[in-house]
Amino acid sequence: MEDPILVEVTRGERVESCHRGAFVVCDAQGNMRACAGDAEQAVFPRSAVKALQALPLVETGAADAYGFGPAELALAQASHGGEPAHVALARAMLERCGLTEAALLCGPQWPSHEESMLHLAASGGVPSPLHNNCSGKHAGMLAVAVGCGFDPAGYVEPDHPVQRLVREALERVTDVAHIEGRSGIDGCSLPTYSVPLRALARGFARFGTGAGLSPERAAAAQALFAAATEYPWYVAGTGRFCTLAMQALGGRALVKAGAEGVFCATLPETGLGIALKVDDGATRASEAVIAEILARLVPECAASFDPWRPRQLVNRRLIPTGQVRVIEEAFAGLS
Amino acid sequence: MEDPILVEVTRGERVESCHRGAFVVCDAQGNMRACAGDAEQAVFPRSAVKALQALPLVETGAADAYGFGPAELALAQASHGGEPAHVALARAMLERCGLTEAALLCGPQWPSHEESMLHLAASGGVPSPLHNNCSGKHAGMLAVAVGCGFDPAGYVEPDHPVQRLVREALERVTDVAHIEGRSGIDGCSLPTYSVPLRALARGFARFGTGAGLSPERAAAAQALFAAATEYPWYVAGTGRFCTLAMQALGGRALVKAGAEGVFCATLPETGLGIALKVDDGATRASEAVIAEILARLVPECAASFDPWRPRQLVNRRLIPTGQVRVIEEAFAGLS
Repeated sequence: MEDPILVEVTRGERVESCHRGAFVVCDAQGNMRACAGDAEQAVFPRSAVKALQALPLVETGAADAYGFGPAELALAQASHGGEPAHVALARAMLERCGLTEAALLCGPQWPSHEESMLHLAASGGVPSPLHNNCSGKHAGMLAVAVGCGFDPAGYVEPDHPVQRLVREALERVTDVAHIEGRSGIDGCSLPTYSVPLRALARGFARFGTGAGLSPERAAAAQALFAAATEYPWYVAGTGRFCTLAMQALGGRALVKAGAEGVFCATLPETGLGIALKVDDGATRASEAVIAEILARLVPECAASFDPWRPRQLVNRRLIPTGQVRVIEEAFAGLS
Repeated sequence: MEDPILVEVTRGERVESCHRGAFVVCDAQGNMRACAGDAEQAVFPRSAVKALQALPLVETGAADAYGFGPAELALAQASHGGEPAHVALARAMLERCGLTEAALLCGPQWPSHEESMLHLAASGGVPSPLHNNCSGKHAGMLAVAVGCGFDPAGYVEPDHPVQRLVREALERVTDVAHIEGRSGIDGCSLPTYSVPLRALARGFARFGTGAGLSPERAAAAQALFAAATEYPWYVAGTGRFCTLAMQALGGRALVKAGAEGVFCATLPETGLGIALKVDDGATRASEAVIAEILARLVPECAASFDPWRPRQLVNRRLIPTGQVRVIEEAFAGLS
């Protein structure tokens, strides 16, 4: 099946580029509220499932053992911008487990937050694994390893006991087997498994509502949801979409981007989960799509998404050049 | 018409993302040697037509008047990386016309060449319009203005005499009217006009061979072609696709990228011009497509394009994660 055009990018009065994709909005039973494109296509959720990957951190008791509160739980499910406070909290999480950044296997990355990157460069610094957008997730996984008495070495490998716990959580919440033939290696070296879009949306509905989860897992999910929505800055950072969206929605939704044009979200009040994938992987398009969905699902907060509906483009002299805008018909089922 | 998938991006054994697009390979009469997708779709060529935009610089005698040799003519058709020697040459071009960077209306931009950007940041510097990837083109246009006795102020405006000269050259070479309804504003504030893909490819065939051009214009095109192929580093920079491709082809082709997934090229020996557009604007895809076309058109240089056929992707620890690869069937007409 061919996914429809969901987003177009204009220059002057003309369409310059366009983006195809698919999205699913459904409840914890998988009943579709709305969709576009191929709802059953398997996609790599990448960082969009970090909240699910963090479940063992709470469930094993490691978070409590090391005194991780909501800020740490937010960072453990973050794709952060490498701003100084992100880096400092990731370092502190490792220290509380008796580890240092030397234990991190996510690799170094320049901060995506431009000011932080330039400041690091201007001070003669170089990026460390703590600056990697995934360092909080990795610190959380290392806490699981140390807390459970596993050897932390090789904690990113699919057969390491930490990854077995993570995989079990992903499988139970999405109800999809996470097997080798569906796996790839993520940018931060962790395994990532492709999952049908509808199963991802259903999984996030479960995560947000607790429906279909054990009481312990539902409680862990609730703690992670509360942490992300209380500390959205730790989930992404200054000026970043996930942070701004969660701030705008005032605790109503967990919203998380993944690389290659993915978003997952859950709105517990409505019982709904959301998953989307832009075919070509473009973030400008995935942000336009999730903004449109969230604005339509939460009309009282819709005005907060005006900067993306449409997003105005300017050039290097700040002269308006065009827009990133959704194809409204594709979202008609949501209004 | 729906453009076909030309490129897919894999992770592990699965396709994670894909890119649709269109390309045309044709001669100076517009006879198609090969194509994919909608050959008649109008696209904004953006920086891919910088060689055509530089024709007035040669034709008006401004290049000669200010002593611009092939290095300056290469920079005048460049999207350069803002490396120190790019910046120095752009500054020198302005000085020879009695101007400074204050005359540039392209706006400031951090160098896209990472090492240069970090060095600038580390030295406490900030980007100037000279670092803008288009500064050479703008310096060339300012040389036209001064050389012709025009007031250089507002040289980026569509009705400025410099832009009238540029537009006339674009119209004659592509044989397409460049009218307001087809125009947009480029990232560097110049006008850009949408042109059907086949007309772009035909225009580059004309540019490379001189067919259909006046003798004066053909000579100017020849000078610009010779400059770009003699000094490909000035057209883009260290590690950049256009530079590497022109080096690999040893003077056989002018190859130029434009923003939003465009490439134009000409191979005078074969009489062919090339134009392509990736629907979603992704550079990783446009580079894969042009690499495949060039490798097939110039088999004796094909090995130089092995790094893109396919391009291997690695993560932050340099672990292989997947590939960017073309859908070979779409290129079958070229082999």
